[in-house]
Amino acid sequence: MAPMREPIDFYFDFLSSYGYFASLRIEQLAARHGRAVRWHSMLLGVSVMKTMGLKPLLETPLKRDYVLRDTARYMRRHQLELRRKLTDPFMDPRAAARGFYWVQRQRPGQESHFARLAFDRYWREGRDLGAPAQVAALAPEIGLDPAAMLEGIEGEQARTDLRDAVTASLARGVFGSPFFFIDGEPFWGSDRLEQLDEWLGCGGW
Amino acid sequence: MAPMREPIDFYFDFLSSYGYFASLRIEQLAARHGRAVRWHSMLLGVSVMKTMGLKPLLETPLKRDYVLRDTARYMRRHQLELRRKLTDPFMDPRAAARGFYWVQRQRPGQESHFARLAFDRYWREGRDLGAPAQVAALAPEIGLDPAAMLEGIEGEQARTDLRDAVTASLARGVFGSPFFFIDGEPFWGSDRLEQLDEWLGCGGW
Repeated sequence: MAPMREPIDFYFDFLSSYGYFASLRIEQLAARHGRAVRWHSMLLGVSVMKTMGLKPLLETPLKRDYVLRDTARYMRRHQLELRRKLTDPFMDPRAAARGFYWVQRQRPGQESHFARLAFDRYWREGRDLGAPAQVAALAPEIGLDPAAMLEGIEGEQARTDLRDAVTASLARGVFGSPFFFIDGEPFWGSDRLEQLDEWLGCGGW
Repeated sequence: MAPMREPIDFYFDFLSSYGYFASLRIEQLAARHGRAVRWHSMLLGVSVMKTMGLKPLLETPLKRDYVLRDTARYMRRHQLELRRKLTDPFMDPRAAARGFYWVQRQRPGQESHFARLAFDRYWREGRDLGAPAQVAALAPEIGLDPAAMLEGIEGEQARTDLRDAVTASLARGVFGSPFFFIDGEPFWGSDRLEQLDEWLGCGGW
């Protein structure tokens, strides 16, 4: 029997378009190399804005124009169409992030399924997910009860779980979305998926 | 006869390790696609620090550790050994940048040759290039006179040329090093060389 290999850790913020793009490819990429993926919801507002002291990408002169163009190019290349525009106002991502950790406690292993649903709802369908009720409305699609999920998102446990997860991500050096670890090696950015692929294929260098 | 194709524009700062890495590969990559490369010396101190209001990478919490690790990984992958450490104090890159534009006026077309020499001296050999005399010492390697170059670097024309080049780069949206344009399409980062290659190969998307 082949030895078990460590899952790939995948960190993302629901309001990150690059995080969304990576979420669409990481499972397939990992599977090609016999790896599972461990999903982690994090908050750019804490890592980039509070800890690093930087502005959001779209509020940074010069980078704003580049990111808009780069994103459009990525979408053409991967044939993606999004109803949400990058320039639309951002949601508060905490409800979705708490929902993620609530699902992880209720149905361990199903949190990545929830994350894909939430990403899809927000970016592809362009619907709002800033309010707990909007997040809880996804519950039936993973066989859970919306009322229970709403209570969970607003409860102490989910808040604590998110806070602990964000603290742990910072302690590990995670700052962007997407961010990955393969056997302890960090990779930042959706433009590093090809490098991840190469790393997994040859065992690193 | 095949139609002439636009050169690739390559922007870099001499004190950027990622700019140095790109400088080692861009000519060969371009040549494979029948393209020339137009080199442009720019200043991160003006784009990133003044215009964007950001801190240097190595003074940004979390990003510092990532950049050090990412750079070491890149060097292993491409079998590069540098005498200069990223954590060594940075030089003032203006003397080298003015030298670049002085060479461009004296020997149009030779400025990329000068840039490769300067990059090599600074990063691979780990020698200082912050003082005009240190830059002028490279002159004989491109058949120019060190005394004339020293005078040129300290003269008004080179200052004006650098200032104009930096202004033009900002107007075009350049902020990082390396930064490229292919037929008007912008690409940022040494980790985008593979994407450049794909873009050139298929004509874009």
